[in-house]
Amino acid sequence: MGVLGEAATQALIPIASLIGIGFALLQWYVVSKIKVFSYSEDYASYADEQLMQKQNGEEDEEEEEGVDGGVAAAKCGEIQNAISVGAQSFLFTQYKYLGAFTLTFSLVIFLFLGSVKRFSTKSEPCTYTRDKLCKPALANAVFSTMSFLLGALTSVLSGYLGMKIATFANARTTLEARKGVGSAFRTAFRSGAVMGFLLASNGLLVLYITINVFRLYYKDDWEGLFESITGYGLGGSSMALFGRVGGGIYTKAADVGADLVGKVERNIPEDDPRNPAVIADNVGDNVGDIAGMGSDLFGSYAESSCAALFVASISSFGTDHDLSAISYPLLISAMGIIVCLITTLFATNFSKIKNNTEIGPVLKRQILISTVLMTVGIAVVTFLALPASFTLFNFGSAKNVRNWHLFFCVSIGLWAGLVIGYTTEYYTSNAYSPVRDVADSCRTGAATNVIFGLALGYKSVIIPIFAIAVAIYVSFRLAAMYGIAIAALGMLSTIATGLSIDAYGPISDNAGGIAEMAGMSRKIRQRTDALDAAGNTTAAIGKGFAIGSAALVSLALFGAYVSRAGITAVDVLSPKVFVGLIVGAMLPYWFSAMTMKSVGSAALKMVEEVRRQFNTIPGLMEGRTKPDYANCVKISTDASLREMIPPGALVVVAPLIAGTIFGVETLAGLLAGSLVSGVQVAISASNSGGAWDNAKKYIEAGVSDHARSLGPKGSDAHKAAVIGDTIGDPLKDTSGPSLNILIKLMAVESLVFAPFFAAHGGWLF
Amino acid sequence: MGVLGEAATQALIPIASLIGIGFALLQWYVVSKIKVFSYSEDYASYADEQLMQKQNGEEDEEEEEGVDGGVAAAKCGEIQNAISVGAQSFLFTQYKYLGAFTLTFSLVIFLFLGSVKRFSTKSEPCTYTRDKLCKPALANAVFSTMSFLLGALTSVLSGYLGMKIATFANARTTLEARKGVGSAFRTAFRSGAVMGFLLASNGLLVLYITINVFRLYYKDDWEGLFESITGYGLGGSSMALFGRVGGGIYTKAADVGADLVGKVERNIPEDDPRNPAVIADNVGDNVGDIAGMGSDLFGSYAESSCAALFVASISSFGTDHDLSAISYPLLISAMGIIVCLITTLFATNFSKIKNNTEIGPVLKRQILISTVLMTVGIAVVTFLALPASFTLFNFGSAKNVRNWHLFFCVSIGLWAGLVIGYTTEYYTSNAYSPVRDVADSCRTGAATNVIFGLALGYKSVIIPIFAIAVAIYVSFRLAAMYGIAIAALGMLSTIATGLSIDAYGPISDNAGGIAEMAGMSRKIRQRTDALDAAGNTTAAIGKGFAIGSAALVSLALFGAYVSRAGITAVDVLSPKVFVGLIVGAMLPYWFSAMTMKSVGSAALKMVEEVRRQFNTIPGLMEGRTKPDYANCVKISTDASLREMIPPGALVVVAPLIAGTIFGVETLAGLLAGSLVSGVQVAISASNSGGAWDNAKKYIEAGVSDHARSLGPKGSDAHKAAVIGDTIGDPLKDTSGPSLNILIKLMAVESLVFAPFFAAHGGWLF
Repeated sequence: MGVLGEAATQALIPIASLIGIGFALLQWYVVSKIKVFSYSEDYASYADEQLMQKQNGEEDEEEEEGVDGGVAAAKCGEIQNAISVGAQSFLFTQYKYLGAFTLTFSLVIFLFLGSVKRFSTKSEPCTYTRDKLCKPALANAVFSTMSFLLGALTSVLSGYLGMKIATFANARTTLEARKGVGSAFRTAFRSGAVMGFLLASNGLLVLYITINVFRLYYKDDWEGLFESITGYGLGGSSMALFGRVGGGIYTKAADVGADLVGKVERNIPEDDPRNPAVIADNVGDNVGDIAGMGSDLFGSYAESSCAALFVASISSFGTDHDLSAISYPLLISAMGIIVCLITTLFATNFSKIKNNTEIGPVLKRQILISTVLMTVGIAVVTFLALPASFTLFNFGSAKNVRNWHLFFCVSIGLWAGLVIGYTTEYYTSNAYSPVRDVADSCRTGAATNVIFGLALGYKSVIIPIFAIAVAIYVSFRLAAMYGIAIAALGMLSTIATGLSIDAYGPISDNAGGIAEMAGMSRKIRQRTDALDAAGNTTAAIGKGFAIGSAALVSLALFGAYVSRAGITAVDVLSPKVFVGLIVGAMLPYWFSAMTMKSVGSAALKMVEEVRRQFNTIPGLMEGRTKPDYANCVKISTDASLREMIPPGALVVVAPLIAGTIFGVETLAGLLAGSLVSGVQVAISASNSGGAWDNAKKYIEAGVSDHARSLGPKGSDAHKAAVIGDTIGDPLKDTSGPSLNILIKLMAVESLVFAPFFAAHGGWLF
Repeated sequence: MGVLGEAATQALIPIASLIGIGFALLQWYVVSKIKVFSYSEDYASYADEQLMQKQNGEEDEEEEEGVDGGVAAAKCGEIQNAISVGAQSFLFTQYKYLGAFTLTFSLVIFLFLGSVKRFSTKSEPCTYTRDKLCKPALANAVFSTMSFLLGALTSVLSGYLGMKIATFANARTTLEARKGVGSAFRTAFRSGAVMGFLLASNGLLVLYITINVFRLYYKDDWEGLFESITGYGLGGSSMALFGRVGGGIYTKAADVGADLVGKVERNIPEDDPRNPAVIADNVGDNVGDIAGMGSDLFGSYAESSCAALFVASISSFGTDHDLSAISYPLLISAMGIIVCLITTLFATNFSKIKNNTEIGPVLKRQILISTVLMTVGIAVVTFLALPASFTLFNFGSAKNVRNWHLFFCVSIGLWAGLVIGYTTEYYTSNAYSPVRDVADSCRTGAATNVIFGLALGYKSVIIPIFAIAVAIYVSFRLAAMYGIAIAALGMLSTIATGLSIDAYGPISDNAGGIAEMAGMSRKIRQRTDALDAAGNTTAAIGKGFAIGSAALVSLALFGAYVSRAGITAVDVLSPKVFVGLIVGAMLPYWFSAMTMKSVGSAALKMVEEVRRQFNTIPGLMEGRTKPDYANCVKISTDASLREMIPPGALVVVAPLIAGTIFGVETLAGLLAGSLVSGVQVAISASNSGGAWDNAKKYIEAGVSDHARSLGPKGSDAHKAAVIGDTIGDPLKDTSGPSLNILIKLMAVESLVFAPFFAAHGGWLF
């Protein structure tokens, strides 16, 4: 037994969750104190208030040069409102589809798992402790379905809350930019933190409650209990799939469509209010990059916890009923919340940002601080909660493990995440030579820009793969599949900080958009642009993180699946496995083909609509009349909801077909193939896209002689850079990040359905 | 024993080879009868001869409208000469590098293999027949090195001869185009056939002779004999690697460089003689698409034969010393030569091409005819040469196989090739909707064109992968790893026809270039363009074929490696293997990053030189002065030779490092990973590139209302299409096809070095 008693560990988990939720609500409260007016009538009272504040000696609001602050401020409110309404309406429509899917799929889970023992209500001997009786398969079907529903609900909630706070914070960030870049940064960052902490804490709390409620029925059948809990991960990830794909198509259809007509044909700036697709574009950031990514990372988190809990339940933790030890994954997450809370204070309270160049370093430091602190946190948890030595099961054979082994497993995952994050930054930030080379290749046109960008994406795969490989090797050697599961959890333990930084990006992006649309002064737009540029790099880091953790999580789930399906070896030399392997390696391509084509087709529709509006609405180009924003929002909504179904179906159906028709071994091959191939496609797609985006920004910003020799905006090199950026959009925001979910979801789905495949699968082979 | 006696089978192999060589020489003779003059002084005597022919009633040479046939014809000769000199000089320089590499690597082979038993000259007990004595490991080192050298030499010879005939035939095709499209087609096709038959026949003959010479020493130690023979495959493939990569960089640096300045900046047509890079571009076709591809397919052929022979030698064929049965792979190839000979007659003698649209179908029919005839041929060989039933070894366990099982194995490989070829055609020919959709997306600019093209490439992977998966599953189930080796051989059995068609493409491309440069009339240029367009599609088919066969060959080599290294299972659940798997899946990306960046950098240099010449040579744009072609040839030569080294080194060194430091299991994972990932990257890269190329051609040709609505040349949509085409160039002609060699070479290298890795490898794990 570890040093901490059962009661202490069990109390710590909900307490940390509640602290996290409380901290999130506090940040929300701080942000909400910034006033936003939707109508200029409100301005009079606001002006009075400002005057009073000034007399009271509060921080000066800077004077806007020649722009009526009141009117612009009121416009901000209006725009925020439009974005919020658009995002909410999209999500609500999407939830109808998701509701239908969830109900159908619940039925599938129940029927498939129930049929394993022909819906018998008789208790069965346990798989791992043969002399004991475990709960019937039917109970597993019922509880798996329930935890699936809970996971789905929590995932949707995470996405929705993220969107809510983001659309609440975007205009507030713009308004705060009048006070200075520091205030604006704090507002955006606090808002990101709301999302980060709510998601991490809710995810942990719901999982904790679910386990404890399920225990009322399962009692000491921990095997059955944690098998059922895997449904939680499946629920989280299946919502994430549609969230990422649907949101990704939405945001990029709008973005590409807006850019192609606005920037390329009409030569008006990004986020110009005359562009009919501009609201859809900003809505897209919230439904894709916020709600979609929230669901995605929640899914990773839920899955790695489930995988670790499941593997732990069949180890000596489970057979000895050591609750503190089996709760180790949850304790790590609880510690993560506390560590991230401290880390956040470094950004919001311990550092003062005075000028635009300080933003990037502060954000980057967040990752480093959280990693260092978390390493200490892991040590504390490991030595307090775990017995000094114990037995793990490694596909049938037992393996003796000591507690400090687990410390290294979790830590190596954590630090591998840092390596991946920093590598991603190196390849996608325009502070370093890779992106500058890409920018330089724009001299000879779009073709060389694309060739160099693709090559950069391919190259950026090398270090992350080595980092993942080392993490896998070390953690497996130390603690078998459980080691990999907790390494994944280690990478995700600082998820609250990771998500804060991630969510900060789209909020700043929106703030910039709102500043442009509301006609704020140049100074303010420069500030929001600086916030946005820093956000772009952290977004790339976040994607690298998401992919790296997805790789580890999938491998952990793969291991759990193999254990649960009763496979003892996945031998590449068996044709069943090899066929699965090569077809699995193909699936990411099939999936990407669908999502990219969807973005392309939806963007073409958007282009037609935007062109139509420019051509038929008189006075639009001159800014005398307003475009029909709602129609563009509708086009993006319809296209993304329609187009998310085929790729979603591919991912959901592929493991079912492979398992049912070809059997558990082919499915194992399929999972391994899609994992090793999907990781590469995802990383290269994200980084190529990120590099093109920042190469364009590098030329636009013109901060060095080299950059100025390529610019300014509108030069041939800049036009070539815009083409690269547009190509990168679906790669980095739709197909790339969705692949995380492809590999995770297929693995967790296989894990949940493993008993069915093992019992009834393999009709053909 | 089979129906045919040992003597009959052993006689048939060299006879078929000699028939093939004779047929190739006959075709060369027919082509050589077309006269080419290098200097216009020769024209007088030529004119007299023509007059005499006319009086004798021979086929009329059509009058060229307003173009002096004599001067143009003489120009053709001059241009041919320049191309031939450029190609020869590049290849000779390349051979110096290759010579140095070959000698060094021979030494490595000798030292590594010799050290397995510390250079002992004592005979050892055989691995598979324990009670017999086999030749010492040192003999294996010596003979493996010798067969490596022979393979390298034959590969280089294949490439060189291909280049020779291609640069001999290109101007002749142009000149024949004056007589009509049929004559020109026959000339190009016969020249392609010279290469196809020489390569297939030489490859078979050298292998046959080598085996028989080695037998003088090895006598009845067939295990040692066929282990040494695997060096032949390694030699073939390592030359192919540098040929493909070097040639690929050469051709695309010149092509991209010529297009970027000529087409995009200066708005002059492709192959315009004013473009300084135009000769380098045409040289590139011969060194990349002809010499490189020849070496590549020779490598596949040699490797699949070696893999099949090696696996057969450890089956009951080998232990019973049934020479007819063990020669089965060679007999299949011999039959292939005869079948392809008949198939060729359908194109050159049995069909009359009267107009431009008939070319494509005749070429496509070649593939179908050869496949159907070969199926009969396989049946004949199988039932004559093989005993009715026999034993194969499947990683330790024995498996009983009947002769008709092998018939199905070879046939399924053959037909899978057809499926892959036709799928490739569907995705890359502008006769079908995928390419037309890509062309249509050019309406909204280069970005959507690239997005749609990438999506098309990804999608085009699906059917080939299923075809490969089915072929693997069926052939493995029927005859274990031997089944896969002979399935690969089946796909390659019609290599003579495949290569004829492949080589036809660049020859026609050159012919078109020469027609343009020599200032031939519009009618003639339309004819050569039609030849070229048909060649583009068949080139894509050829690439599909090359990749499909590479996948099967690598798997067969992988199986042979696993047998030779004494591994009994490659279990993905072992961290050693999984780490290899994920890193292996990354290697194609690393490799592609290098090759693409190389093309990009070399193209940038070319662009600068072309721009410099346009800016500094007075009268160049007006056509009054000649550009400095030689300087562009030099730039391409230098860049490609320098840039081929790092990617080449990666492929050669990776298996050595993995095997030596991490051991045979990690290496097995590495091979499996690079195979399943590399196939996808290669297919998608080739097909995206092919689709962009043909989308551009579709717009240029303007054959339908839809195409005309996008055109003409110089329209915005056409400009977008040109950008896509340029991006596709390195994908389809450098990185994509080189990946075939990556996966094959790593596998064959591992096979050759297997005893060393098994004995001394795995320092770290």
